[in-house]
Amino acid sequence: MDGIEATIGIPMEAAEAAVRAALAEQGFAVLTEIDVAAIFRAKLGVDRAPLKILGACNADLAHQALEIDPSASLVLPCNVVLEADGDRTQLSIADPRALMTGSMLAELAATAAERLVRVRDAVVSRGEGKQ
Amino acid sequence: MDGIEATIGIPMEAAEAAVRAALAEQGFAVLTEIDVAAIFRAKLGVDRAPLKILGACNADLAHQALEIDPSASLVLPCNVVLEADGDRTQLSIADPRALMTGSMLAELAATAAERLVRVRDAVVSRGEGKQ
Repeated sequence: MDGIEATIGIPMEAAEAAVRAALAEQGFAVLTEIDVAAIFRAKLGVDRAPLKILGACNADLAHQALEIDPSASLVLPCNVVLEADGDRTQLSIADPRALMTGSMLAELAATAAERLVRVRDAVVSRGEGKQ
Repeated sequence: MDGIEATIGIPMEAAEAAVRAALAEQGFAVLTEIDVAAIFRAKLGVDRAPLKILGACNADLAHQALEIDPSASLVLPCNVVLEADGDRTQLSIADPRALMTGSMLAELAATAAERLVRVRDAVVSRGEGKQ
């Protein structure tokens, strides 16, 4: 699946702070947080690179989407994935245009995607500033 | 988007307990919980029927999926949606076969879907027993 992606030139902890700030600027709250690496270590005894999934949601856009099509709840919130790659961080954001298929939600999905691209670009420019 | 769906003949609180038990039986942990109605009330001043999104994950299947295709993180965990409908509850589970597109993940998606269909069927039979 294609996401809204970038390699950020700062370590994961700093990248996560930048991502959370950029999401807030675009009206997205982080509703959930999953530390995938910690879960795999605890449940499977598997060691892997740090990997976190943040669940981001813009309440206004989500409300409009659910009014149009209640099945939008199957793809909310939007996953914002951070994975450590040494001193850099891989950022991958689920693209609402790929998830909210169907013409009824196309306009809202495009609006959400536009904001999430701005999140990605804001984090990239912060990361580059620290490289 | 199509989900794995059912109308359960018991109120939402009891349905949620049945769903959580059935998920555990199939090896899914509930990693996240979003009270959508509470968020809309707090953020938008909107009143709506109770609506909850549980994020369910089978660590073993998720680990296999990420080994095959790291972009699987964009669609994890699996949404299990509960919506109150008077004394009944609408259950809708995101279908991994619709989310994990691409032949590399098809087998895992089918395995996950099979288990989630069992979750749905177990909850339906519990709900019918109380009707």
